[in-house]
Amino acid sequence: MHKITMLGAGLIGMFYTQTLHANRSRDKVHVLYSRSEQKAKEAAASWGVEKWTTDMDEAINDPDTDVVVIGLPNSLHREAVLKAAKAGKAVLCTKPLATNSKDALEMLQAVENAGVFHGYLEDLTYTPKMLKTIDSVSKGAVGKVLWTRSRETHPGPHSAWFWDKSASGGGAIVDMGCHCIEISRALVGKNVRPLEVVCWADTQVHPIDVEDSAIGLVRYESGAVGQFETSWCFRGGMDLRDEVSGTEGTVWINHWLRTGFEMFTNVGQQGYVAEKAEGDKGWLFPVGDELAELGYVHMFTDMLDALDRGIQPMETFYDGYVVNAIMDACYRSVASKRWEPVELEIWRGEKGSAEKSGFSNYDDKHLLIKEEKMPDGRTKVILKEKESGRIVERIKRS
Amino acid sequence: MHKITMLGAGLIGMFYTQTLHANRSRDKVHVLYSRSEQKAKEAAASWGVEKWTTDMDEAINDPDTDVVVIGLPNSLHREAVLKAAKAGKAVLCTKPLATNSKDALEMLQAVENAGVFHGYLEDLTYTPKMLKTIDSVSKGAVGKVLWTRSRETHPGPHSAWFWDKSASGGGAIVDMGCHCIEISRALVGKNVRPLEVVCWADTQVHPIDVEDSAIGLVRYESGAVGQFETSWCFRGGMDLRDEVSGTEGTVWINHWLRTGFEMFTNVGQQGYVAEKAEGDKGWLFPVGDELAELGYVHMFTDMLDALDRGIQPMETFYDGYVVNAIMDACYRSVASKRWEPVELEIWRGEKGSAEKSGFSNYDDKHLLIKEEKMPDGRTKVILKEKESGRIVERIKRS
Amino acid sequence: MHKITMLGAGLIGMFYTQTLHANRSRDKVHVLYSRSEQKAKEAAASWGVEKWTTDMDEAINDPDTDVVVIGLPNSLHREAVLKAAKAGKAVLCTKPLATNSKDALEMLQAVENAGVFHGYLEDLTYTPKMLKTIDSVSKGAVGKVLWTRSRETHPGPHSAWFWDKSASGGGAIVDMGCHCIEISRALVGKNVRPLEVVCWADTQVHPIDVEDSAIGLVRYESGAVGQFETSWCFRGGMDLRDEVSGTEGTVWINHWLRTGFEMFTNVGQQGYVAEKAEGDKGWLFPVGDELAELGYVHMFTDMLDALDRGIQPMETFYDGYVVNAIMDACYRSVASKRWEPVELEIWRGEKGSAEKSGFSNYDDKHLLIKEEKMPDGRTKVILKEKESGRIVERIKRS
Amino acid sequence: MHKITMLGAGLIGMFYTQTLHANRSRDKVHVLYSRSEQKAKEAAASWGVEKWTTDMDEAINDPDTDVVVIGLPNSLHREAVLKAAKAGKAVLCTKPLATNSKDALEMLQAVENAGVFHGYLEDLTYTPKMLKTIDSVSKGAVGKVLWTRSRETHPGPHSAWFWDKSASGGGAIVDMGCHCIEISRALVGKNVRPLEVVCWADTQVHPIDVEDSAIGLVRYESGAVGQFETSWCFRGGMDLRDEVSGTEGTVWINHWLRTGFEMFTNVGQQGYVAEKAEGDKGWLFPVGDELAELGYVHMFTDMLDALDRGIQPMETFYDGYVVNAIMDACYRSVASKRWEPVELEIWRGEKGSAEKSGFSNYDDKHLLIKEEKMPDGRTKVILKEKESGRIVERIKRS
Repeated sequence: MHKITMLGAGLIGMFYTQTLHANRSRDKVHVLYSRSEQKAKEAAASWGVEKWTTDMDEAINDPDTDVVVIGLPNSLHREAVLKAAKAGKAVLCTKPLATNSKDALEMLQAVENAGVFHGYLEDLTYTPKMLKTIDSVSKGAVGKVLWTRSRETHPGPHSAWFWDKSASGGGAIVDMGCHCIEISRALVGKNVRPLEVVCWADTQVHPIDVEDSAIGLVRYESGAVGQFETSWCFRGGMDLRDEVSGTEGTVWINHWLRTGFEMFTNVGQQGYVAEKAEGDKGWLFPVGDELAELGYVHMFTDMLDALDRGIQPMETFYDGYVVNAIMDACYRSVASKRWEPVELEIWRGEKGSAEKSGFSNYDDKHLLIKEEKMPDGRTKVILKEKESGRIVERIKRS
Repeated sequence: MHKITMLGAGLIGMFYTQTLHANRSRDKVHVLYSRSEQKAKEAAASWGVEKWTTDMDEAINDPDTDVVVIGLPNSLHREAVLKAAKAGKAVLCTKPLATNSKDALEMLQAVENAGVFHGYLEDLTYTPKMLKTIDSVSKGAVGKVLWTRSRETHPGPHSAWFWDKSASGGGAIVDMGCHCIEISRALVGKNVRPLEVVCWADTQVHPIDVEDSAIGLVRYESGAVGQFETSWCFRGGMDLRDEVSGTEGTVWINHWLRTGFEMFTNVGQQGYVAEKAEGDKGWLFPVGDELAELGYVHMFTDMLDALDRGIQPMETFYDGYVVNAIMDACYRSVASKRWEPVELEIWRGEKGSAEKSGFSNYDDKHLLIKEEKMPDGRTKVILKEKESGRIVERIKRS
Repeated sequence: MHKITMLGAGLIGMFYTQTLHANRSRDKVHVLYSRSEQKAKEAAASWGVEKWTTDMDEAINDPDTDVVVIGLPNSLHREAVLKAAKAGKAVLCTKPLATNSKDALEMLQAVENAGVFHGYLEDLTYTPKMLKTIDSVSKGAVGKVLWTRSRETHPGPHSAWFWDKSASGGGAIVDMGCHCIEISRALVGKNVRPLEVVCWADTQVHPIDVEDSAIGLVRYESGAVGQFETSWCFRGGMDLRDEVSGTEGTVWINHWLRTGFEMFTNVGQQGYVAEKAEGDKGWLFPVGDELAELGYVHMFTDMLDALDRGIQPMETFYDGYVVNAIMDACYRSVASKRWEPVELEIWRGEKGSAEKSGFSNYDDKHLLIKEEKMPDGRTKVILKEKESGRIVERIKRS
Repeated sequence: MHKITMLGAGLIGMFYTQTLHANRSRDKVHVLYSRSEQKAKEAAASWGVEKWTTDMDEAINDPDTDVVVIGLPNSLHREAVLKAAKAGKAVLCTKPLATNSKDALEMLQAVENAGVFHGYLEDLTYTPKMLKTIDSVSKGAVGKVLWTRSRETHPGPHSAWFWDKSASGGGAIVDMGCHCIEISRALVGKNVRPLEVVCWADTQVHPIDVEDSAIGLVRYESGAVGQFETSWCFRGGMDLRDEVSGTEGTVWINHWLRTGFEMFTNVGQQGYVAEKAEGDKGWLFPVGDELAELGYVHMFTDMLDALDRGIQPMETFYDGYVVNAIMDACYRSVASKRWEPVELEIWRGEKGSAEKSGFSNYDDKHLLIKEEKMPDGRTKVILKEKESGRIVERIKRS
């Protein structure tokens, strides 16, 4: 069992604490830190946490705790990680790891040099549906991955700091693109190097200094493309969907608005519908167990089990660093209006995974383009003559 | 933390043990009982259970355990419950409680007389979607409940004993109707008395002595009807759906085949798809976290939290008894081909909940049947004249 | 090309006329009849119909028209059919054919004796989805049909006469049960005799003399069961769903609320959403081409093409008569609270289609109950010993 | 009624002819042209077309026909249009209008100079769902349009010529991007100028000279972005989906694989499932009336009704020209790896539609970023101070 220091008393701190205390858990949040005394006090009481403080050092160095969980605004992650590394404690940091790859690299090196356990709290790779998908895809269920799509859009975050560049470091890309990018990596394969990025971003609706919408394409060395769509302008709730398409199959995941749970009510749902739901009358789409559907349950189980077993969790600070490097390239592409390389000072994956798959030979003289069964039962093939390059149709020899 | 005696090393014992050990749990299955030495030994090793035995008394009376979980064939529940009650241990029994209401009543009285904690392991009222639905419906989100539908059908159970009347006590009604009936009670309100039942059952496909398909209607004192559909003849996987319809709304739940997780694969899914899935190529519909989606996680959390707090869990042996009484009426109705009363020696709910809702007065002389907005913006009402009973249309006075 | 007399200027008359004039049609509604002069005049102008009258005889006997389409309240169908038969014109009558089977039989004999073309306007067997399903099912795609479910529920009809027994002849059963029953027949096979019926009906919500909700089971000679659910108490729009389940497959159809067309709007949909939609903000589920989705387009194409070719359409007055006979049995069952026989004076289908499918032999001594692949790759079979009746498990001989 | 010359006897010619003859139509295909005598003869017989020829001039100049419909490979559109214009006949040309914008402009000018009626056969803007969406969106149902997504992917086209650059003029962009781009224009508003494009394309799987996958973003003067995704590498059938997102709402359309029609079959569907379906066992997703769902029915109705009334149809050659200009920019962007301007010699829409929407004032000193209801019932606002630019949170004054 672990005793935990929780940094942050906002929405994410609440979700994390609820998860850590849920389901007959043997772990316990022991100290809660918030910059605001009132928030710290109230949240500790409401969440069942014994101690609270407004002193981050005191929270991190509490002698009873062995794990520090960081649920603070993005701009404070670096400071908190460096302190936790210095304190020699296991440190789990919420997404994005940092606001840029330079800071992320410093944080990675700090925890590795200190030799402390580190986990990157990228919950959306831990949703039950995504875990099964990653497993199936890695075993070849969709063949070679060609394309992924990860979409996270909603009507905008709850807390003021997200909208404020000095605290968040960016807009929809930093807030949600980090999820989408890591999902794409998990599906394409984390060993496959991300090469370059093209990204569109704009402030379409709100009077803010950061982007409220962005779309990006990440090109991997294998030829796969990871597409992400993020926006704070979406209406209708929280749209959390992932798709992966490969040479042999496809997967479609809907995490939130269409999960087999649909309600019509003329009088109101009489309670909380789901995170970022709009309205509570008419057709509503609640979510069963939000903490589980968002991946928190399996994420903390993996993190703390890995800590117990002395192994790495599925998501580490190195992953957070790669995601930051991709986001940096996104912002450069928005500015330059062209594809930009992903700059990685450290690359721990494979090199040269760029195999162009050998095309299928149909016979000595032809490559196979397509084969299909016709209504009359015969099989038609579309072929390319190797010598001339001409495209021809044939009825297949049986 | 609890140390648990698990009776049964089949599929359900495995699901229960996995759940009790999942998610950073502080509880532990300590002894495993199976009638088969080989199964007991292998399962204990594979599930991480310290001790095993083929002696039920030894398992139940193990001095280190305080909770007995029964995951045995239906015909063995009674014996196991009586032994556990005698041993003074908390007892959690899988569904159905018994094979008939007479046995169920005896078991209820045994645990109540012994003063032991008892829980009825009706997992499908504990799925995350159903828990939220029960909460919303009980708060009035759909108005007065008029109708529920609960459907559980699949291509037939895995173990031979289900198909064998001497072990199971019945077919699809006993195996799955018990789930559907209890879901209906949870939605209509457990305080509302079930009055009578009409049921069709047949052995449509298999060479067995029990029904492989059944459909039933349970009429409640409030006027609500609880419809259930069960079958071992369904093709396409496991069809687990619930619906509830009330005067102000409706809820549709799909637990299994359409949960926002869809996969097409030309090569095979490369692993387990989901319980009772058919095939592993083409379009597949996996399930995220099966233990959670089937309600096991929240069920054991409620059971053991209730035990810790000295309160009753959501599902008790009394509920199991009522379900058995309704199933008894179902079987009588199949035989008599007419509605049959639900016979309850003990009724702990409300009496006379049969309020015919006062119809809405439109004005002194008319009752309101329907009001609707017309394309031209005016509002049309359909009224019944109180004196004459005539139905008339009117444009609403504004 | 046909010139048509349309009887009825209500919603159904409008849908029919729109359909007959849609899609580059060569047919034309030439005369419109309504009991109300104002309605007749306004509708004729608005729908582009040349002539109108309040005299039914004049409408039917108009020398320019060769087809009479009946879109009147149920209680007027009989009179209109008898007049059209006498006039020697082709007659197409909307559902239900009559308010009881006695009238239906009289109407059937009238058109057959007069030798006029007759079609039963049961649109829901003509929806594009249902036509494909009937075709696939009849070719064996789901094996032997075991069960069908047809559900039509909504918040209640638009016109006062539906709520008034003297005009409608009944409530939800007569209004919508007729659709569901005929869908069931089309899927089970129209040659298979419906034997008996059990039906629940109640007036759950409205101050009316007819049922506003009903559920029925129709048992066919083949062993199949056709389940229908109808209600005027449903909230959330119009719930039009069909299911069919057989020994080799299943089909699920959703005609209305979930057809791959979903809209969220914060400001209103700015126009008509769909028939019986509730509200026009929040999540809405419009329907593409309503006339096509409800089957009207294919229904009139089949009817008029059949008339041109001198053959029978898919739905005739005989079908309408069988449906009325089943509905009569439903009402008797509601009263008697038991299964009631379907009384058919004329049966034109097969006799004795009650083959109990021969069970599969596994070997000389065993019947096969179930076969399934286990996680370890071996195949398990569940068998019944022919002599002893015992159920046993085996690993399959390869 | 019209008599029609059909150019082309392939899949598209068949779909067009079936549509023109369907649903009690008064129009008739009178002459069929194909380059292959055998195809022309067989198709004419099978489709019920009176005359056939392999001479395009003869087909176009047939004295009995007044409309020429072009269903030929892309590279032949220009020649056919010029001939039809010269013949003074109404001309309807399938998508894409041309293989590049220079040819498209020439064709546009040819028909305009000849004064003949012209229609661009872009069927996917005519699907029933899309027609309703365009109507709702144009009336403001989703507010100001911010983003559209149009996706058309499948396992590759049926005919060899699509794969052959000399006949097709390009790959997935030319084949399907043209649909997606025009859908985007219809939703953003055809009066809004497309400014620039960024596009990724690759030949991911097939041994061909054209792209088999492409993703593009079209930026409009209003700030809206039209995203398209096309691929011949998708597995699972034909994925036809559209989405539109605006300041006040969103629309999701699924045209093909999830339309409320789902079938599981263990034995095979016993017939054609749907265009580009993969396999015919397991879970299948048929389509109701394909001709209607693909927009053909409403497209030809609009075209021929417009011709009869002497007005323009919804889709004209000018639309085809704009689409070609956008595709030209896509190919330039693929080569340059940067955003490329859309070059339009003729622009008939609005100028300067680039209004940055005035942000909402909360009070004199603050702009409103977001307003939301908190669980405790109070309303929180996130504001931007106009002077300082600082982001602050407030509880709303009531």
